[in-house]
Amino acid sequence: MTSQADIDALIERARDSSPRTQPFYCDEDVFARDMQKLVSRKWLLVDHVSRIPEAGQYFLYEVGQESIIVIRDDDLKINALFNVCRHRGSLVCLEPEGKRLRLTCPYHAWTYGLDGSLQAARLMPEDFNQLEHGLHRCHIRVHHGFIFLNLSPGDEPEFDQEFAVFEPHLDFHGFAEAKIAHRASYPTDANWKLVVENFFECYHCVPAHPEYCSRHLRDALVAVGAGPNSGPAEAIERFAPVLEEWQEQAAKLGRPLGTVDDDEYSLHMKAYQQRPHRSDIKSETQDGQPVACLMGHRTECDYGRMYLSFSPFNHIIACNDFAALIVFTPRSAMRTDVEIIWLVDGRADTVDVDRMIWMWDVTTRQDKVIIENNQRGILSSRYQPGCLSDQERRVDTFNKWYLNQLTN
Amino acid sequence: MTSQADIDALIERARDSSPRTQPFYCDEDVFARDMQKLVSRKWLLVDHVSRIPEAGQYFLYEVGQESIIVIRDDDLKINALFNVCRHRGSLVCLEPEGKRLRLTCPYHAWTYGLDGSLQAARLMPEDFNQLEHGLHRCHIRVHHGFIFLNLSPGDEPEFDQEFAVFEPHLDFHGFAEAKIAHRASYPTDANWKLVVENFFECYHCVPAHPEYCSRHLRDALVAVGAGPNSGPAEAIERFAPVLEEWQEQAAKLGRPLGTVDDDEYSLHMKAYQQRPHRSDIKSETQDGQPVACLMGHRTECDYGRMYLSFSPFNHIIACNDFAALIVFTPRSAMRTDVEIIWLVDGRADTVDVDRMIWMWDVTTRQDKVIIENNQRGILSSRYQPGCLSDQERRVDTFNKWYLNQLTN
Amino acid sequence: MTSQADIDALIERARDSSPRTQPFYCDEDVFARDMQKLVSRKWLLVDHVSRIPEAGQYFLYEVGQESIIVIRDDDLKINALFNVCRHRGSLVCLEPEGKRLRLTCPYHAWTYGLDGSLQAARLMPEDFNQLEHGLHRCHIRVHHGFIFLNLSPGDEPEFDQEFAVFEPHLDFHGFAEAKIAHRASYPTDANWKLVVENFFECYHCVPAHPEYCSRHLRDALVAVGAGPNSGPAEAIERFAPVLEEWQEQAAKLGRPLGTVDDDEYSLHMKAYQQRPHRSDIKSETQDGQPVACLMGHRTECDYGRMYLSFSPFNHIIACNDFAALIVFTPRSAMRTDVEIIWLVDGRADTVDVDRMIWMWDVTTRQDKVIIENNQRGILSSRYQPGCLSDQERRVDTFNKWYLNQLTN
Repeated sequence: MTSQADIDALIERARDSSPRTQPFYCDEDVFARDMQKLVSRKWLLVDHVSRIPEAGQYFLYEVGQESIIVIRDDDLKINALFNVCRHRGSLVCLEPEGKRLRLTCPYHAWTYGLDGSLQAARLMPEDFNQLEHGLHRCHIRVHHGFIFLNLSPGDEPEFDQEFAVFEPHLDFHGFAEAKIAHRASYPTDANWKLVVENFFECYHCVPAHPEYCSRHLRDALVAVGAGPNSGPAEAIERFAPVLEEWQEQAAKLGRPLGTVDDDEYSLHMKAYQQRPHRSDIKSETQDGQPVACLMGHRTECDYGRMYLSFSPFNHIIACNDFAALIVFTPRSAMRTDVEIIWLVDGRADTVDVDRMIWMWDVTTRQDKVIIENNQRGILSSRYQPGCLSDQERRVDTFNKWYLNQLTN
Repeated sequence: MTSQADIDALIERARDSSPRTQPFYCDEDVFARDMQKLVSRKWLLVDHVSRIPEAGQYFLYEVGQESIIVIRDDDLKINALFNVCRHRGSLVCLEPEGKRLRLTCPYHAWTYGLDGSLQAARLMPEDFNQLEHGLHRCHIRVHHGFIFLNLSPGDEPEFDQEFAVFEPHLDFHGFAEAKIAHRASYPTDANWKLVVENFFECYHCVPAHPEYCSRHLRDALVAVGAGPNSGPAEAIERFAPVLEEWQEQAAKLGRPLGTVDDDEYSLHMKAYQQRPHRSDIKSETQDGQPVACLMGHRTECDYGRMYLSFSPFNHIIACNDFAALIVFTPRSAMRTDVEIIWLVDGRADTVDVDRMIWMWDVTTRQDKVIIENNQRGILSSRYQPGCLSDQERRVDTFNKWYLNQLTN
Repeated sequence: MTSQADIDALIERARDSSPRTQPFYCDEDVFARDMQKLVSRKWLLVDHVSRIPEAGQYFLYEVGQESIIVIRDDDLKINALFNVCRHRGSLVCLEPEGKRLRLTCPYHAWTYGLDGSLQAARLMPEDFNQLEHGLHRCHIRVHHGFIFLNLSPGDEPEFDQEFAVFEPHLDFHGFAEAKIAHRASYPTDANWKLVVENFFECYHCVPAHPEYCSRHLRDALVAVGAGPNSGPAEAIERFAPVLEEWQEQAAKLGRPLGTVDDDEYSLHMKAYQQRPHRSDIKSETQDGQPVACLMGHRTECDYGRMYLSFSPFNHIIACNDFAALIVFTPRSAMRTDVEIIWLVDGRADTVDVDRMIWMWDVTTRQDKVIIENNQRGILSSRYQPGCLSDQERRVDTFNKWYLNQLTN
């Protein structure tokens, strides 16, 4: 039980130096503050609706020490309910996913509807009001097929305006009708901010990710390998003509254009960027060939890919034929769940899963090792936040955004 | 090192709300307070004398971070000694049980008698007083065959008056001459209070324990399934005629009658209750038939069972032919040892162990799962102590008793 | 995050009682203080130069949460570098030992020379000064073949004068040209001070180490079994004539004489002592026969052995033909790495490893068990620091030295 005043003082000091000092990556009390002030207040993309197509189907989403039931009710509406019985606090659902007619607590059989309302509780006192004892609801929005949760205890935080900018892009890719082709977990023994920082720069791509680099123009990786404005200004300038030429072609094939690059004062630090692969690469596969039919409103391959961040926790990388949804979930000070969900068009008959997952699977395995070694080095007394390269500009933005969140 | 003042403040707040809030089930500093103010001050039943019939035989009893040697000396008296050498602090006995002529520390061979007195220590300074360096003694009482310890550092707390009320019942069952037929461990990853609360209500019996329920009258389970006054008043009233009729028959067969139901201000929150099984059930076995000869002073089966709590940590459930001694031992904030020791009459020739353990073994396995899921749910930020049913009245009494102990 | 003031108060109280109370052996915050005030300020012997004979060869030395690269550069000079990239803090070397042309961080490929200087960092801002971003250096001294590190953050602490007293002895044994014949690890789940206290007394030898005792005169073990003045005054007196007679013979064969016995106010609590084995024992092997050629400047076996402590963390026990280098490395409050490195003369052709390691291997395995049981006993509320025997005088000196270090 570290005093909140001690944490406040630590954050205050970070404003003058950096939030990349040791305790921000290692301390459980700082993690509790991260959960309270940041993770619990953001819209978190947790999965795609196609995971639970039928009434009664559910999965559990676990973040920090929270467990949330995401379940489709009889009207096919999806609800998010804290997995904590209102009676004595038992978990209500024990399996990570399944199908239920109703939610019956395994302890004393308090029974809830699929909307979380309490429907039966035996032998309660006369003044017990069943209506007041539904499962605690978690804010939920389904948007273009993606399920977003927000764990804020109060009113539902604004959603539509915040994410409106993505509308044409999500629509073009047809995510609302997409389906899950594969999923894989890469639990990583490191603080969530190390996972995010790794994702927000491509400075490590050349040394660490040969497979990933083989799919892309070298200039593109340096300029925008980790999203808009992630690289040096001159690299961006050098890449601009290539990008513009490709954009022109892509626009002709129907792709909506645009870029999003939220700053350190934004709510979700969203990002959006589109660019071409290597010119002979149709999809991010080893042979460059697609693994499934084109996604969404496409009629022809445009050799491009999009990068979209709903927040530092959720990212979509979409080729023409499949998309990788990347989900980072903080669990404790030195543990983060990393999950990748591969999506294909809802009309796709056949999907070559092995070829589809090749690049992100090998890359994420590499990142797991890298990030865990980063965490271990930070435990040293000699660790100090180092100077960032010109290819890590988004890491700096993220650090500032993080501190702003803690002090909001 | 949380300040004691912080714990004091937490307990003070619990007086206005509930001691069923998250920290009371999860926090190691609260657990340390539980050990100091409560567990270390109670008479804890740790085993039956028949475990160590011969001189020199011992077993270790471990509670919290304490290890205590319970050993029979050459006069067959049983001593309880802290398993910590007075020299440099090594454990003296390493094996969980065994037989010793004397207690020699494996480190420097300081040698203690079976009463803990220091008998040999080589090369000590001249002013070293051997008499002052015996193993620290733990208060011990042997009562009707049961071994009770009390870890209080001061004078021996009163015993005889506190437990006198059980005399005729313990005598009738012949526990002093009973013998151990089997034992099993069910270590449970949960706070000890969750284990006790589970035991102090039968509200969960119908949903969770079909085997247990199959042995009993439904009315009995609702009214007194977890001891005297554990159920709703009207259920108790409804069950009263059945109970009275059975008591009349049982008394004729020699069973002493009576009920104990200590309140929240008591020292040990003792309880005692007798009632019939289902009318065709002689013993709590799957076929309802006994597994051994009748226990104690019985001459004929009376189809009944007794429930006796020496404290929230120790319970006996006795049929006519065997008794299950249930021992809950706190180990850390989220770990509790659960052990069951099955006893039969000392004259029993043959015992059908599989049939004897069936009901409590399956029921305790079920409870382990239930309680661990209760613990996990309580870790959520949304957990809050819920309203109790009319069948959980003893849980409420226990919660109040617990708080009273902490503030005594 | 326990306040430093709380730790200060604990140390202050220990001055009036003992630093052998429970928190000094169990508490992670006390361990952090041990690291800061003591371990990080001492010269620690970490290995022998023969482990890394060639340019580019390195090994990692891990102490507390620190990882240090000990590497031989192209001029064959050995450098010690904190294994923490100056960029984002990743570990630079991941394998426990190996050979490198340069040190390239696996994360972003910042590349350092074998002296730690930063040689390449892509895409850094214009004002980035490469010269200021070498790996943090750890103080290092190579002395008679032994590699010493000192983790002090400031100027290099004095070395030459502190260890000058050992010169003739280290020279006589030829350690500078010795080579490693074998190494073994005995990680021990106990506080480092329990490991040191175990090594600083031979009071436990008779009960715990039959193999060790079989090699030595009983009188020698009692008098000086754990170094100079480790036993009772009268035992030392009784052993004196035997010792003197042997010294006279040994001196004739060239062995330099002398004793070192640093007191509680010293910097490193060094110690040095020579004495004979049992008179029929040439080497500390099971059959008493040597396992290799004589070490150093010897021409003939003198049936003796030397005991040398550079500090409580590092000890050499040398027979005529081999030496055991014993290295204790604190890792956390209840974890200590124990490593033994066996050395033989650099000219030794053949070494009988099994016979060489027999005594220290079996003895160290025994000590691991003993020390871990000591740690477990200390967790009890009834543990209190006991009275020491006349054969544990160096334990008392160590306890006082330890407290002096914490308050310096």
